Amino acid sequence: MIVLKIGGSEGIDYDLIADDIAAVVNEGTPLIVVHGGSALTNKVAEQLGHPPEFVTSVSGFSSRRTDRRTLEIFEMVYCGQVNKGLVEKLQRRGVKAIGLSGIDGRIWEGKRKDAIKVIHNGRKRVIRDDYTGKVEKVNIDLLQTLLDQGYLPVLTPPAISYEGDAINVDGDRAAAATAAAFQAEALIILSNVPGLLEKFPDESTLIRHIPKAKIDQFMSVAEDRMKKKVMGAQEALAEGIGRIVFADGRVEQPLQRAIAGEGTVIG
Amino acid sequence: MIVLKIGGSEGIDYDLIADDIAAVVNEGTPLIVVHGGSALTNKVAEQLGHPPEFVTSVSGFSSRRTDRRTLEIFEMVYCGQVNKGLVEKLQRRGVKAIGLSGIDGRIWEGKRKDAIKVIHNGRKRVIRDDYTGKVEKVNIDLLQTLLDQGYLPVLTPPAISYEGDAINVDGDRAAAATAAAFQAEALIILSNVPGLLEKFPDESTLIRHIPKAKIDQFMSVAEDRMKKKVMGAQEALAEGIGRIVFADGRVEQPLQRAIAGEGTVIG
Repeated sequence: MIVLKIGGSEGIDYDLIADDIAAVVNEGTPLIVVHGGSALTNKVAEQLGHPPEFVTSVSGFSSRRTDRRTLEIFEMVYCGQVNKGLVEKLQRRGVKAIGLSGIDGRIWEGKRKDAIKVIHNGRKRVIRDDYTGKVEKVNIDLLQTLLDQGYLPVLTPPAISYEGDAINVDGDRAAAATAAAFQAEALIILSNVPGLLEKFPDESTLIRHIPKAKIDQFMSVAEDRMKKKVMGAQEALAEGIGRIVFADGRVEQPLQRAIAGEGTVIG
Repeated sequence: MIVLKIGGSEGIDYDLIADDIAAVVNEGTPLIVVHGGSALTNKVAEQLGHPPEFVTSVSGFSSRRTDRRTLEIFEMVYCGQVNKGLVEKLQRRGVKAIGLSGIDGRIWEGKRKDAIKVIHNGRKRVIRDDYTGKVEKVNIDLLQTLLDQGYLPVLTPPAISYEGDAINVDGDRAAAATAAAFQAEALIILSNVPGLLEKFPDESTLIRHIPKAKIDQFMSVAEDRMKKKVMGAQEALAEGIGRIVFADGRVEQPLQRAIAGEGTVIG
């Protein structure tokens, strides 16, 4: 089993990725796909007059402020346009794709945060009406049933809280939780950079290998959005996933290249 | 098996409907839900600067002009906001809902129309880049697998063409095709009127019963959006469904009332 996370940033080529998923699936490799949609969500949120806001946690992580209206827009883009667009591309290529959010069948379940502590204009502030959380449980039975029948699950946030609220969760960490639940051989994370860069955005400074024991040292190297990918990798390693690859989602055969070890290999 | 179609017009109360679905599912009645989203799609399309257009076929049926951009907006609303919103409401009520479009796992497959002949400003015109079609095949195996595991499928257009293009299909007729595929006991269609009205919009002129043999005569009574519901009913009757109910989606216990025969009962 390989879990493939496809980012939602500008530049990632969903057609090339769909071509490659079809090739890998046809070879018989079991696969689960997880995708993002952040750049398009920002754009649509602007167009709908509810511009995106980002908050920085006291521990230094940036995340989307998710009030109820943002959650609706998030679902429109992630579960609607991006998920169905990708499923359609895969179906055209003969892949039996089936698109699901973490809400559906409680595929991704977790705790909704009661309060998030953020830094706003240099001051600490507590936000209580945010719909965010973290995936703690994966509905393996449902996903395995679909896999057994030859379907390719294409998963997207949001997840669902124990009380039944939709919650925005980080896609990289949700993919890591999914890989851990299945004890996947590898977790591959495609984004719009070639991997973890020593000096972002200089692509010639690609870090090609990080031994498992040294992953913690690389958190400080990761810029902004890469931080959660590194955190997802830490979590996946802790859960026993042997190999995590950060790779380039803008090139031909991005999945096969990552499987072959192109990018930043962790583990 | 009951197939329940919930319309997408203004006034339909999704909270009351979700309460009632939970009650009916808890009694052990097998159910498949299909929903619409037309009113919200119109609103979002306006907000996104791609206002809705409707065309009238030469046979007098009105339908949404669905170019590629409209299809994206359609998916955002139907598959994103409405589908996930309804699944969330059901999950909160303890129902194991799982939201899927007709694209996913090719649940609804059919032919994309090569050309649609419409009347535009009194003249005949042919449109060739429309993403519309009709459900011809239902993936019973996938839906039955989910039902067998206790999940409630919550289905929404679009469907998928044989070539793998997403196609806008009428939700009432898709629900009818689903009911026919499962040889359901009943097809219930909730909208923002109490049923078929002799003199629309006068609700006191509700037609309480239409015998199967007389359905064709009622096409002329149906106004605008009701026409496709009557067509769906004709198709469902032709496929052997014994009972179709057009009922009110704005009241308490709308599903149980419809099952009890409140509304327009056909068959």
